[in-house]
Amino acid sequence: MIYKFKPIGIIHSCFQEKFGIPRQGRLVPEARGTLEILPPYNCKEAFRGLEGFSHILITFVFHDNQSPEEWRPTVRPPRLGGNERVGVFASRSPFRPNPLGISVVELESVDGEKGKLSLSLKGIDLLDKTPVLDIKPYLPYADCVPEARGGFAVKMPATELHVTFDQQALIDCEHWEQQGYPELRALITRLLSLDPRPAYYIGGANRRREFGMKLLDFDVKWKVVDECVVVIEIRSLQG
Amino acid sequence: MIYKFKPIGIIHSCFQEKFGIPRQGRLVPEARGTLEILPPYNCKEAFRGLEGFSHILITFVFHDNQSPEEWRPTVRPPRLGGNERVGVFASRSPFRPNPLGISVVELESVDGEKGKLSLSLKGIDLLDKTPVLDIKPYLPYADCVPEARGGFAVKMPATELHVTFDQQALIDCEHWEQQGYPELRALITRLLSLDPRPAYYIGGANRRREFGMKLLDFDVKWKVVDECVVVIEIRSLQG
Repeated sequence: MIYKFKPIGIIHSCFQEKFGIPRQGRLVPEARGTLEILPPYNCKEAFRGLEGFSHILITFVFHDNQSPEEWRPTVRPPRLGGNERVGVFASRSPFRPNPLGISVVELESVDGEKGKLSLSLKGIDLLDKTPVLDIKPYLPYADCVPEARGGFAVKMPATELHVTFDQQALIDCEHWEQQGYPELRALITRLLSLDPRPAYYIGGANRRREFGMKLLDFDVKWKVVDECVVVIEIRSLQG
Repeated sequence: MIYKFKPIGIIHSCFQEKFGIPRQGRLVPEARGTLEILPPYNCKEAFRGLEGFSHILITFVFHDNQSPEEWRPTVRPPRLGGNERVGVFASRSPFRPNPLGISVVELESVDGEKGKLSLSLKGIDLLDKTPVLDIKPYLPYADCVPEARGGFAVKMPATELHVTFDQQALIDCEHWEQQGYPELRALITRLLSLDPRPAYYIGGANRRREFGMKLLDFDVKWKVVDECVVVIEIRSLQG
């Protein structure tokens, strides 16, 4: 039996590429996005009452997997340093038999005008253009399990790295914050403090390599020196 | 764009019909089931490390919807007495554009023998034969949001009704508890205390009508007298 699903919406995210995306929702509250609801679901009635919920569950497709046909029984989660293998169903890896993701995110508002409908979201971990199959209200009495034991991923990842900005990066950041990106510095700081480097770089020989990620309308470059992140460039992608 | 998914497993549930199923996972801890993993996913490796997690997220298909092609922008959730309408995306109703469900359930064990693999589950809200598309470990740091505001469904439904057993029902129950259904009375008691009657019966003129549900291998019959449930029959479906 095969089940077919059509997206009800598309994510517009600050994350323009996979590298650097937090590994779950809610880790970076400044990570914002909108969920554009597609016709015929873009009617306000279908969302009546949703604004009473502070959080929603988003079911989405990991659409950017390179070879979705392939699946492997085990994966190497970054939380384990990228060396140890665990079962794919004991992980939240995007590379799974059915590439479905679930994120808990904060709902800021339901916005409708001129026949368009979108949801403003905070704390997302979703790549730009992610197809969304369903949204549901987050029900604390059913979905919140404070006593749950979490295996190898029981705790929020520690905020490990201190983040500083080079003088020019700081000037650029302040400039862009006044041009319509008011939380740019907080967003970059929180994202990079989670240390998005691939596990095999951390503590390795290539410690001073430069890294870059596309974030909002910028190319952000940084390096890690003595376990401290230094942001070295914030370049506009629009020229 | 259409996305296609194939079940990775099938639920074997104590719930043989929709009527009476708790409206979320975890409401009735005695509600047990197993998730049979289908080939080629039934290899132990794919679940390595899962037993370290106490809870899992199950993504499943509401397979028993009568007219899956139809969707309506609003639904009448039982939590609101069945009268008030809310948007389908502000509800957990099975009748939604993509009939996908998410349940948080307790994982008791991962059991493998003779090339078969299954997960033992507690606190399920899933109909027998439900197709499962994905399972993921429940990560408290990402999935548990104690501060979430829950709209019209903020609290666990109150345990409203007191449940008693007729003399014959009690004798039958004790008999079956010794025949391999050790938690039968606790299961029936907890389920019926949640008052599974359709909203339009509650407080209505048909208060003394008999209700029945297929549970495990039994047909369970009860009525409600003065806001008190009386179990009147527990009949084996096997003859």
